[in-house]
Amino acid sequence: MSFEQMWASLLPIGRDAATGGYHRYAWRPAELECRAWFVDQARQRGLEVEQDRNGNLFAWWRPERGRPRDHDGVRRAPVLEGDAGVREQVHDHGGRRGGRGGAVLTGSHLDSVPGGGAFDGPLGVVSALAAIDRLRERGRTPARPIGVAVFAEEEGARFGIACLGSRLLTGAIDPARARGLRDGDGVTLADALSAGGVDPEAIGRDDELLGRIGCFVELHVEQGRALDVPVGVASAIWPHGRWRLDFHGEGNHAGTTRLGDRRDPMLPFAATVLAARQSAERHDALATIGKVHVTPGGVNAIPSHVAAWLDARGPDERAVLATVEQIERAAEKAAGEHGVMAAMTRESDTEIVSFDRALRDRLAGAIARDGERRPPVLPTGAGHDAGILAAHVPTAMLFVRNPTGVSHAPAEHAEPADCLAGVEALTAVLDDLACDPSPAT
Amino acid sequence: MSFEQMWASLLPIGRDAATGGYHRYAWRPAELECRAWFVDQARQRGLEVEQDRNGNLFAWWRPERGRPRDHDGVRRAPVLEGDAGVREQVHDHGGRRGGRGGAVLTGSHLDSVPGGGAFDGPLGVVSALAAIDRLRERGRTPARPIGVAVFAEEEGARFGIACLGSRLLTGAIDPARARGLRDGDGVTLADALSAGGVDPEAIGRDDELLGRIGCFVELHVEQGRALDVPVGVASAIWPHGRWRLDFHGEGNHAGTTRLGDRRDPMLPFAATVLAARQSAERHDALATIGKVHVTPGGVNAIPSHVAAWLDARGPDERAVLATVEQIERAAEKAAGEHGVMAAMTRESDTEIVSFDRALRDRLAGAIARDGERRPPVLPTGAGHDAGILAAHVPTAMLFVRNPTGVSHAPAEHAEPADCLAGVEALTAVLDDLACDPSPAT
Repeated sequence: MSFEQMWASLLPIGRDAATGGYHRYAWRPAELECRAWFVDQARQRGLEVEQDRNGNLFAWWRPERGRPRDHDGVRRAPVLEGDAGVREQVHDHGGRRGGRGGAVLTGSHLDSVPGGGAFDGPLGVVSALAAIDRLRERGRTPARPIGVAVFAEEEGARFGIACLGSRLLTGAIDPARARGLRDGDGVTLADALSAGGVDPEAIGRDDELLGRIGCFVELHVEQGRALDVPVGVASAIWPHGRWRLDFHGEGNHAGTTRLGDRRDPMLPFAATVLAARQSAERHDALATIGKVHVTPGGVNAIPSHVAAWLDARGPDERAVLATVEQIERAAEKAAGEHGVMAAMTRESDTEIVSFDRALRDRLAGAIARDGERRPPVLPTGAGHDAGILAAHVPTAMLFVRNPTGVSHAPAEHAEPADCLAGVEALTAVLDDLACDPSPAT
Repeated sequence: MSFEQMWASLLPIGRDAATGGYHRYAWRPAELECRAWFVDQARQRGLEVEQDRNGNLFAWWRPERGRPRDHDGVRRAPVLEGDAGVREQVHDHGGRRGGRGGAVLTGSHLDSVPGGGAFDGPLGVVSALAAIDRLRERGRTPARPIGVAVFAEEEGARFGIACLGSRLLTGAIDPARARGLRDGDGVTLADALSAGGVDPEAIGRDDELLGRIGCFVELHVEQGRALDVPVGVASAIWPHGRWRLDFHGEGNHAGTTRLGDRRDPMLPFAATVLAARQSAERHDALATIGKVHVTPGGVNAIPSHVAAWLDARGPDERAVLATVEQIERAAEKAAGEHGVMAAMTRESDTEIVSFDRALRDRLAGAIARDGERRPPVLPTGAGHDAGILAAHVPTAMLFVRNPTGVSHAPAEHAEPADCLAGVEALTAVLDDLACDPSPAT
């Protein structure tokens, strides 16, 4: 099945016909259908399918035992220390730039945000399978295992924690806390996992699996308009944080309460929305308020309470903090003018992730050797499983151009030619990192 | 049962113990319990209970047949034309200022807004029953029927149309449209009525009942802080309208979309909130935005759409329209600056209600004669069943002071002494409008 055929077969799953947006939530029917699609694609290719203790899926292309190992020893990644417990070892003695040895993992995720686009996640999975097809078509064979990962609940759309599958795998979230997470219907992650065939008591850090992964390369659609060529390489993920803003005023009747008697929390909330934009502009950062809860939320009721969530990101932690501090001062000032109480609470805090420089350079080199220009290196403001894995194994990312910059929305798009350029780049990278040397090298 | 005892017995029904707010929605268990409470109170007093075709409840204190009719003929209201079909006629030949004759109706409603206060509605019902008690204690007897009404779904909290019971009674809403109204769970009014023992096919304008009503006097807690004495008389209900504001932008990723690439509808929405307040101040009107829907509503998503509802009221139609036009201009300007489409749609439009001047003056006179100061006359921005009835029968309202001005919220309050002053004022009004002359007169 070609890239185009795979893409077309995945496209209808979980798609809202009216809006074109996707609703693929972890362990819900649409996402389970995506998982079944992946398992089917892997089996059609003779790849070994593994579901780990945390509900992440892997399709493995393993080196054949007993095949020749002699090669130039320069561009190949080694299997080194720490491979105890590896089920298949590759005794490769190539260069070390691809990481500490073990498997070369690629892939991404298949879940979506509510009403999300088709590319965020699936492009990395489909491209990985297509890259394996290309390697085989070219007679390439792996000297180290090549794995295609489908991480669970990357968007956090159901249980509220982004990259939940990779966080569990790496121990970045306490398993007991994770089990108790609830979706909007009050269903716990533990119950959702049980229903999906995953033992919730067995979730958590998986050193055996982590020990088998030599490096991770995630291909992803770029989510802004920062890339003006088909493919780029990631430098870093911006630090970002999430804050909750609470404005407590006095609920009252919209028709009878004189303006001067009001303590309407909607007014300082509105002033804070405008201040957030100004502050982000001033600090070359990003600030977004995309979620608001108004209590009681009646047309004829002055609200008693407005809760809003601020997402702030920037090139460094200093810029983020400066942005947020200015927003907080504006919120307090506006609240004071209206007799409203304002409070700001940090809900999450993600430090900058700088991807492995050696691996990044090796990716760029492999793509350039494949006949392409050396790809640009750029940061992103979006979180990814790669950002979680980066604390444990050498990790890198490839970005495919997004012509409109739209992401997390139905209009999210990448041109077919750019997608195929992404497949070719990933093919070159996997070839470089994991395959036996080609006769021509 | 005294006023205080009645109040205490009604108080726990439908009350949220955590917030103190009330959740009494038409035909739901808590509201049905309030209705049963009312029927019980009426029967304890020997009043005749009637549920009309539209689910409104009435408790009637009727004149005894064959008792003496001779009296001063000055302060009594007549039974006049249009009384065909009246089940009990009162052949009273008193003055005409109390309306066209027929019953003197008082009362209010027992349903609440979500999380509403204890007084809005119930104060008028409990005060009416207490006033009847006082008239009886003083040996007064009705020359015309005195009715205590409990109108259904006054707040519109369940089916979205305020004053639904009085609108149906007076033909102000098409019965077929009303039958199809749905609550938040998708239950139609027709089904809710059937479950409550009301034939949904029989709802609609009830000329027989309307013909029996000579005038309507609703006592209600004042909903702002405009009253600085215990009791006032209403002059008018301000005109008001409800507009829907739609801001359509472009959904996108909060972490990757450069500020300059954004078309974030939250920004012009926020600017419009602030403009609404400024415009209301300029035109001595009221403007409130208390309901907001953000799509998709994710913490890390620039919204694609913000919908908000504007409630605008003012002393006259001109002030309301001037306020709203200025808000619309501000919304369009702010939307244009952010590449967002703004649209404003009028959803409802209620003209000014000026209460019957003769009846209002008669109320004021009766209260003053009772030993009180002549009560102040004031308008209100809130809708009431009295505003609906006013188009059909002479109608007036009494307001009881609200010391904080809080309404439609748990903190809504009236002092016990002011409530008793309200009972006494209503007693004087019912005595004046409906009773045989006292020997002393």
